[in-house]
Amino acid sequence: MRDNVVISKATIDRLPIYMRTLRLVQEEGIEIISSEDLGRRLAITPEQIRKDLASFGQFGKKGVGYYVRELIRNIGEILGLNRGWNISIIGVGHLGWALANYPNFMSLGFNLQAIFDIDPHKVGIKVNEVEVFHLERLQEIVTERNIAIGIIAVPEIQAQVVTDKLVEAGIGGIWNFAPRRIYAPAHIKIINEDLSVGLTSLSYYLTRLIKE
Amino acid sequence: MRDNVVISKATIDRLPIYMRTLRLVQEEGIEIISSEDLGRRLAITPEQIRKDLASFGQFGKKGVGYYVRELIRNIGEILGLNRGWNISIIGVGHLGWALANYPNFMSLGFNLQAIFDIDPHKVGIKVNEVEVFHLERLQEIVTERNIAIGIIAVPEIQAQVVTDKLVEAGIGGIWNFAPRRIYAPAHIKIINEDLSVGLTSLSYYLTRLIKE
Repeated sequence: MRDNVVISKATIDRLPIYMRTLRLVQEEGIEIISSEDLGRRLAITPEQIRKDLASFGQFGKKGVGYYVRELIRNIGEILGLNRGWNISIIGVGHLGWALANYPNFMSLGFNLQAIFDIDPHKVGIKVNEVEVFHLERLQEIVTERNIAIGIIAVPEIQAQVVTDKLVEAGIGGIWNFAPRRIYAPAHIKIINEDLSVGLTSLSYYLTRLIKE
Repeated sequence: MRDNVVISKATIDRLPIYMRTLRLVQEEGIEIISSEDLGRRLAITPEQIRKDLASFGQFGKKGVGYYVRELIRNIGEILGLNRGWNISIIGVGHLGWALANYPNFMSLGFNLQAIFDIDPHKVGIKVNEVEVFHLERLQEIVTERNIAIGIIAVPEIQAQVVTDKLVEAGIGGIWNFAPRRIYAPAHIKIINEDLSVGLTSLSYYLTRLIKE
């Protein structure tokens, strides 16, 4: 990876999508992929792909394509996936439960270290072998287990309170599933997940299908 | 909306993101937003935003910004959200349950009409006031209730079987949460949801924060 290259935020935002698609490509047993084929799968122009990937150095071979395994390793390094982040989920509702059982996190190098809730019936149980702690132990467990990321899976109304507690506990990043905006100091990175984006895309394509 | 303008797929893929951000902006009580401010929230350059939105006609006023409500209405129309799509969820695990209770779908005009499962303990119950039917009634209910979209929330191993049944039942689009590739005829639109994308983005930002 070149050290002095300025990478646009738009490119960075596309890297996780590259990563996900390349992993699917790898699962299919494909070892080398052209920017055209990758572009088709990603719905991005081959030119954009070549431009995006060029800023990270030479992963491809002209006229042949990109080596999938090498590209995954390099993008993984850029994304910091080799660091093995410790993560935690706050909220053991259906969403929290589903996230705790989501197989892709672990395969990407994220380690679910703890789950938090305030319901006494949930505290002490294990979800996918990970213990549920009372939320009042957040600070203690976050420090002890070096947890960098908190995933908010609590009802909308509790999202800000939980955010404040995560910030206080010293978390670095928050992945927010509550359908509302949360506020944190500028040094905390927040990613807001909105599950309706996929459905909205489908709507667009179906509208065109039905018109045609 | 101009009729003869060719819109790139990359632009179309950004529209749901515009939609989601504009709705948050609207909730904050903001009526007019500049391409710069919108760009900051979206992590897209203002130039890209002006280019994207220009292909749909004139929503903005030079030197003032975009009228948020008008922009939401227009993008909603382009995305076909005014059609009021009927949707269904297949699989009443934690993920299916969470999706059935996700408040944003309904506010975007998607109507959850039916849920399907094969577990006799789940068939007949209601989740968020929507009935759970046995999967063997899929074709009948899809036709009867004019369901256009199927959301796959079953375990990975059942994803393809459910896909085949949805295609047979005459569904137009599939939103796949199972962490594997599914195959359907070309006229069926598939959106694969990968929940790890958000987490992967966080990893990148945290890596940089910790370096700096």
